[in-house]
Amino acid sequence: MDDELLARFDSLERRVRELEDHVALYQLMMGYGPAVDAGESELAAARWTPSGVYDAQVGAWEGREAIAGMVEGEMHQSIIRGGSAHVTAMPYVVIDGDRAVATAYAQLCRAAGDDFRLWRVTATRWEFARTVDGWRVQRRVNRLLDGDPEAQALLREGVTEGRTRNG
Amino acid sequence: MDDELLARFDSLERRVRELEDHVALYQLMMGYGPAVDAGESELAAARWTPSGVYDAQVGAWEGREAIAGMVEGEMHQSIIRGGSAHVTAMPYVVIDGDRAVATAYAQLCRAAGDDFRLWRVTATRWEFARTVDGWRVQRRVNRLLDGDPEAQALLREGVTEGRTRNG
Amino acid sequence: MDDELLARFDSLERRVRELEDHVALYQLMMGYGPAVDAGESELAAARWTPSGVYDAQVGAWEGREAIAGMVEGEMHQSIIRGGSAHVTAMPYVVIDGDRAVATAYAQLCRAAGDDFRLWRVTATRWEFARTVDGWRVQRRVNRLLDGDPEAQALLREGVTEGRTRNG
Repeated sequence: MDDELLARFDSLERRVRELEDHVALYQLMMGYGPAVDAGESELAAARWTPSGVYDAQVGAWEGREAIAGMVEGEMHQSIIRGGSAHVTAMPYVVIDGDRAVATAYAQLCRAAGDDFRLWRVTATRWEFARTVDGWRVQRRVNRLLDGDPEAQALLREGVTEGRTRNG
Repeated sequence: MDDELLARFDSLERRVRELEDHVALYQLMMGYGPAVDAGESELAAARWTPSGVYDAQVGAWEGREAIAGMVEGEMHQSIIRGGSAHVTAMPYVVIDGDRAVATAYAQLCRAAGDDFRLWRVTATRWEFARTVDGWRVQRRVNRLLDGDPEAQALLREGVTEGRTRNG
Repeated sequence: MDDELLARFDSLERRVRELEDHVALYQLMMGYGPAVDAGESELAAARWTPSGVYDAQVGAWEGREAIAGMVEGEMHQSIIRGGSAHVTAMPYVVIDGDRAVATAYAQLCRAAGDDFRLWRVTATRWEFARTVDGWRVQRRVNRLLDGDPEAQALLREGVTEGRTRNG
């Protein structure tokens, strides 16, 4: 195999790895909702690094035990008993080596009579680290999209980052 | 080409095939909503295998003819006449050779005066088979997220499967 | 490297390029909502080609300056001040060389007291061109899903195209 072909091959391997990163991050994010709506606290918490942070505005938790505790807590349990869907929309993702950031809308839908209420719609920012076990969440931040400038800043930061890194 | 490089090449081909599987399953799922909201009954039904099952809780249909008949039926036609969006959220997907399972939220939005109602929000499970014509749905199950333990079990099964197979 | 292997390699490169196209189109679409909800008018408009068109039914704009002007305009500014989420659902995508078409649902959620209203749910069609700067939107069309046959036609066109090209 000549050098030019070898370079093409190396480049192809790198490109495939980046595509796999995208899919792995999609999976990490899309498993969160089903885990918390099913009350699977450990499975939800395992998406974070051991010292990962979840700042959900209505509360903030650090470490897997605390995050699992939130899922097991009365507030969350009462929400899922009544019927809930923690829907994460398809994210905007920027990967930079062993770090990545995703920006996505989240909708918390709750059963309400013959319909569902769109109870909370938030801007969410997910900061990931590549670990020996694969991608994990280091920090997730939610901000309610009720006109709060902080929620807008979160969205701005996410897409501006993309512009810088992705050209 | 030496053996080591050949092994890398084979591995790369396998990885690309798995990425293509993810995209193909995304496409199969995301074409469902537009097909049923446009009343394209055959196009909707063609996403299933010939003997595929659609268990939508409000009814269950086996085979493409039955699924197409549901789309052509008065209940569905009346929903789409009034204005509807069968939105499937980005799924959590586990691929295992020629089988795959996706877990996703579905929202059925209906026009209601100046707004839209979030009429049904369901947990959906899609079981796929790879056929000579590509991936097809063998069985799809919807369960309303109104606190029903069966809906929670469906979500749990989906993400637990992922844990076992994906580590 | 023998000819057969070289052919496999070329084919693999083409397949990786198509997967990258899918991810690039996902990114282009998913950055739109965060940009407009944050009021980042130029970042939103830069997703279009210089002469790109945005036909949103409530108005139509041609060229980046006009699209940015819509974002800066009083109607849009008043929507985002009150709290909004322009959520684009995962799309159905058909790629054909340097052209692509995506069909997706869009939900415009607005803060309303303790809940959010699902204000507008639309069928959206995005026509893309591959440019020297990557994929850009040439034309985007939104149609409200209130039973309007034009909205249904837009969905039908999107999934029928897929059938023809994807088999």
